[in-house]
Amino acid sequence: MSIEQINAMDQFRAILGADNVSEDPDRITAYETATFKTDKSIRAIITPESTEQVQACMKVATETGTQVYVISTGRNVGYGSRVPTCDQAVVMELRKLNRIVDFSEELAYVVIEPGVSQAQLYEFLQSRDSNLWMDATGSFTEHSLIGNIADRGFGHTRMADHFGQVGGMEVVLPTGELLKTGFGRFENAKGEGVYKWGVGPYVDGLFTQSNLGIITRVTLWLDPAPEAYKKFFCSLEREEDLPELIEVLRPLRLNGTLKSAMHIGNDYKVLGSVQGYPWEVMQGKTPLTPEVMQELSKKWDFGAWNASGALYGSKAEVRAATKLIKRTLKGRVKKLQFIDARTLKLAEMVAKPYQWFTGVDLTQMLKLLKPLFGLTKGVPTDSMIASTYWRKKEVPSGDLDPDRDGCGLIWVAPIAATSGANAKNLWHIVKTVLLKHGFEPTVSITLLTERAMDCVINISFDRNIEGEDERAMACHDELLKELTSNGYYPYRLSIASMGLVAGDGSPYKHLLKGVKQVVDPSGVLSSGRYGL
Amino acid sequence: MSIEQINAMDQFRAILGADNVSEDPDRITAYETATFKTDKSIRAIITPESTEQVQACMKVATETGTQVYVISTGRNVGYGSRVPTCDQAVVMELRKLNRIVDFSEELAYVVIEPGVSQAQLYEFLQSRDSNLWMDATGSFTEHSLIGNIADRGFGHTRMADHFGQVGGMEVVLPTGELLKTGFGRFENAKGEGVYKWGVGPYVDGLFTQSNLGIITRVTLWLDPAPEAYKKFFCSLEREEDLPELIEVLRPLRLNGTLKSAMHIGNDYKVLGSVQGYPWEVMQGKTPLTPEVMQELSKKWDFGAWNASGALYGSKAEVRAATKLIKRTLKGRVKKLQFIDARTLKLAEMVAKPYQWFTGVDLTQMLKLLKPLFGLTKGVPTDSMIASTYWRKKEVPSGDLDPDRDGCGLIWVAPIAATSGANAKNLWHIVKTVLLKHGFEPTVSITLLTERAMDCVINISFDRNIEGEDERAMACHDELLKELTSNGYYPYRLSIASMGLVAGDGSPYKHLLKGVKQVVDPSGVLSSGRYGL
Repeated sequence: MSIEQINAMDQFRAILGADNVSEDPDRITAYETATFKTDKSIRAIITPESTEQVQACMKVATETGTQVYVISTGRNVGYGSRVPTCDQAVVMELRKLNRIVDFSEELAYVVIEPGVSQAQLYEFLQSRDSNLWMDATGSFTEHSLIGNIADRGFGHTRMADHFGQVGGMEVVLPTGELLKTGFGRFENAKGEGVYKWGVGPYVDGLFTQSNLGIITRVTLWLDPAPEAYKKFFCSLEREEDLPELIEVLRPLRLNGTLKSAMHIGNDYKVLGSVQGYPWEVMQGKTPLTPEVMQELSKKWDFGAWNASGALYGSKAEVRAATKLIKRTLKGRVKKLQFIDARTLKLAEMVAKPYQWFTGVDLTQMLKLLKPLFGLTKGVPTDSMIASTYWRKKEVPSGDLDPDRDGCGLIWVAPIAATSGANAKNLWHIVKTVLLKHGFEPTVSITLLTERAMDCVINISFDRNIEGEDERAMACHDELLKELTSNGYYPYRLSIASMGLVAGDGSPYKHLLKGVKQVVDPSGVLSSGRYGL
Repeated sequence: MSIEQINAMDQFRAILGADNVSEDPDRITAYETATFKTDKSIRAIITPESTEQVQACMKVATETGTQVYVISTGRNVGYGSRVPTCDQAVVMELRKLNRIVDFSEELAYVVIEPGVSQAQLYEFLQSRDSNLWMDATGSFTEHSLIGNIADRGFGHTRMADHFGQVGGMEVVLPTGELLKTGFGRFENAKGEGVYKWGVGPYVDGLFTQSNLGIITRVTLWLDPAPEAYKKFFCSLEREEDLPELIEVLRPLRLNGTLKSAMHIGNDYKVLGSVQGYPWEVMQGKTPLTPEVMQELSKKWDFGAWNASGALYGSKAEVRAATKLIKRTLKGRVKKLQFIDARTLKLAEMVAKPYQWFTGVDLTQMLKLLKPLFGLTKGVPTDSMIASTYWRKKEVPSGDLDPDRDGCGLIWVAPIAATSGANAKNLWHIVKTVLLKHGFEPTVSITLLTERAMDCVINISFDRNIEGEDERAMACHDELLKELTSNGYYPYRLSIASMGLVAGDGSPYKHLLKGVKQVVDPSGVLSSGRYGL
């Protein structure tokens, strides 16, 4: 370490206290570990407890030229977990900035810090008997809401576009300056947090998918619980029927009959949610054969594609939407089922007898259905995490930690205009490339917005099997190349694909490099993130 | 003129042809005239016909240090019309870039250039028998859609937040470089225009309310016509009942019963929409006295506050919403009336007999109601323009042109969280300041978004009366000071208040000055716009 670097560590200790500056090799190794192969090492981990401490640390970083890589709670699993995009950085973890700073039931918003997790906000709302719903992702209940916003993640309710629900931000610039966006930059502004654009250029977007600042506070909008809520499920027997389903659903998403994302998972996706890889039946071989898949889909009673959606609104509205969905999907899908809180309870009661009569293990399937029922009403769940152990031979009975346990997972999530043709192309590319490399083509297609769908692709493997890391990354690289050369670009990037943002000569890159130079003249914040 | 400047004009002529470079003193004078006093003179007006020409002109501007001030169709009436924020600029008018470049009925969007007006898009959709609705403002049908987006204007349908409906942009940077935002910057991206964030930092917001680039193309989202549409009106007799009305409407706006902006105009606002200033009754004196207002409100049958809203959705949804509105407003408002296409037709038929029996001039009132009925379903109208002639003694029978005709109008439009307390404060400030300066306190309060309301204040006067320009500006300055010192900041600025964006020492200003330096190193684009 250089004198400046030693100096920086001393200053961090002075600002944060020795307890909040860690050079513990075990902890560092844990933070250097993701669900795929990475090569960046970490110098230390610092854990500020306030915005002021974040500012003070960034001043030190800028003065000493110390590279700082910021994470919130570090649960960016499948995209790189806690591993930096630059080597020998000091990781700044924001989990101790975990205050819910403000809350308005009347105006339906909450002001949060980056350490606030999905679970924490959910409990907060529950404890206040709030009538407001939050949005949740299917990832860790302990993941940071702001961390997800910063990467422009999405959830499953009407508020699924997380960045879209941000009413304003507080951002620490790499130099340590504190920027407030929207009307928040004015003293006592009565429009703060409720009107996102403010006045003058709207800058919030610069601090998402970037390294231009550290978001230390966000006004997040919530949604009043609707009068009625109903979930529905259906499936397609034949994989080639997907495009038609997409075509008939698009108008319903556009006209607001479907107010939240429809989620359409393939057979691999559902299988991975209810059980691990069938090592015994497959006699230790990979990937899963069509024959075994057929058996398992019969056993679990799922289709080639399995869709779920939710209906919200007044009772009359949900009734009308139910009719319309039935009419639209009639004859096109298998087993269209509507579930509300009452029918879910009923299903739980009859699960056992149902199994005796039909042989279908409804109890196990309910373990999947129940969290799905909750997700579209903003109830966070850890129940999907087990699926990251898909190719593992053992799943620990206690805490699940895919990073620690050598679970292999790379996510690639391209966006396309909602159309049958795009769905067909995407599925063809995914199936071809993943099977070629020996991995199950596990995908879900989400009708994310009124006009766009997102295809989330898992590359799942066991990192403890020799050579799998390399095979998975080769698969990832080819997949990304095939997707982008056909016009399918991801909505967010893992640390394995940060270079994809834009060609170096482009005006977009030129603009952003310029902005980076303005806010981070010493280039000390999260170098390499989103190609900057 | 310096050699460089003469040189620049020659180059503009070479690029655009002599016909598209005007130094005609009459035309220049017209462009130097707004609806309030301004002091900036214009050197010339250039009218490119393509994005390439815009690029070429900006290269010349950058090389020669020529100040260029961009307008779209120049209908920014009440905010400064076509008058630049900097002196001796060459005005670049984009009205000849008026192509509708692309259109998708299935995905509900249109790709437009800055010369495309409200009327043009409306006619385009009509001519195709499109099932899609656009959003419209109550301003000129000839105003530019992109011009309005660039200033983050709003309309009256579910798509009222115009910048919020932008799926992507093409921007000419001041140096002449062409930037595409979102997925549009990738070749052949299948998510272009349908998913606004793209990948990497989201930069579109930088090009609104700024001088950082020239928007030459926008993907604008449209809205499928709902199955049912209904408008409703009601009024309050006593001005002090406004806060309670706001409080009971807020939950309905938040939970989606009201999907579009509720519009609440005071008596002055309605009066100005149906007639001019009653010079005779007032015997030439201003401002309007309470006594005369009482007479006129009786004659026209309006209240102290007059609200209108719209209901959209399936038939069942609109039916349920109608019930809920009735229940909520019962006993709180006067004359709650629901109008659909059928009842509007009926009203037109009975207007005459109605007047014989009641003395209320329904025919004249229908002239206001009918365009309002259209506005919340995205039908542009010029019918509100007459109100800019409020204090004029004559209204021309032909083309209305407030700039030309000496109409005095300054708009101030502060935003606040939707609450009765904020409505009360805003109204108190407006009433006090405007009456003190001898102007009618004409306002509307719009429940713009789920959480925020916008108070649009007119300062209306006759520019041809000696001293009125100065009195109006003094009123404007005091109004703005009172509003902002109480926390009420405008959502957009007129050229008379561009300094308001942020203090010069603030991190926000520092960031933007830095960005300006990156994209416009010669400082040649629209200097002074939004304080940059």
